[in-house]
Amino acid sequence: MASSTLLLQPPVTARVATVLVRATVLASLVLSLAVMTTDTTTLQVGINLSVEVKFMDVYSYRYMLGTIVIGAAYTLLQIANTIYGICTANQSAGSDGVLLFDFFGDKMVSYFLATGAAAAFGATKDLKAATEGSGSNVDKFFDNGYAAASLLLFSFICCALLSVISSFSLPKNI
Amino acid sequence: MASSTLLLQPPVTARVATVLVRATVLASLVLSLAVMTTDTTTLQVGINLSVEVKFMDVYSYRYMLGTIVIGAAYTLLQIANTIYGICTANQSAGSDGVLLFDFFGDKMVSYFLATGAAAAFGATKDLKAATEGSGSNVDKFFDNGYAAASLLLFSFICCALLSVISSFSLPKNI
Repeated sequence: MASSTLLLQPPVTARVATVLVRATVLASLVLSLAVMTTDTTTLQVGINLSVEVKFMDVYSYRYMLGTIVIGAAYTLLQIANTIYGICTANQSAGSDGVLLFDFFGDKMVSYFLATGAAAAFGATKDLKAATEGSGSNVDKFFDNGYAAASLLLFSFICCALLSVISSFSLPKNI
Repeated sequence: MASSTLLLQPPVTARVATVLVRATVLASLVLSLAVMTTDTTTLQVGINLSVEVKFMDVYSYRYMLGTIVIGAAYTLLQIANTIYGICTANQSAGSDGVLLFDFFGDKMVSYFLATGAAAAFGATKDLKAATEGSGSNVDKFFDNGYAAASLLLFSFICCALLSVISSFSLPKNI
């Protein structure tokens, strides 16, 4: 019984590689969060009046923030779980439940990251076009939005790759 | 050899059910396209000057159009292929190549539809907020944008469901 459970477990090298990809996802999510949350600008609306614009004023950036938080929390959980599994040689690493959790988790989180990046790209492109000629400050604000969305897009691509791997790792008896 | 290939084929009822879900996807994509392409409004920019705004003026709606076209073409191809397979009792319906094509096709198209809907929702929400007070015409224009994006979101949910099914149908020998 114990040996058949051991056979189901993925090799340590494959699990280490997965942790490295997940660490890359986490790093780019944190970087995207840092770029986005520090993204502020001042908008001149009159001769003596200027308004401070923050990322929270753009609804799509708020959604992007939500997807980053979900993605980072899930990735952190997966990294911790995999490292724990490698260190303790945990027998449940290749169990049907874990494989199904990985499959649905990777799939849902990759959709969240994809929609977060798409919403941010779409809103940035259209708001930048709508506020054309409002000065270099506004342009810089949206350029930072592009940078944050690009990092999120990179996270999504890595997560989509992990989702393909977890699909091929699905239990064969289902 | 022929009997083992037959065993690999999914049952006809399952294939008919898949065709019905794909037909629902196609119908909502066509409806979304119809709502979006007829979405025009006139914007009063001066006392005697009005500008016609079309969906093509919003970059995110252009991207949504692209994802709808990709989604509709893929869905049409899959419907035609499945109906042909059922009618002719085609032996290749359960082959590894077809299952892999379904898996990657459903996965990629569901990502396209998700990002199309997200970009449209994001841009609509932010542009509507940015043009607040511009009149009921503009509001109606963006409300139609919401309607088209909602239909695309529904298509995405159906396609994500198909993607889960095609993941579980992946060849067991890989």
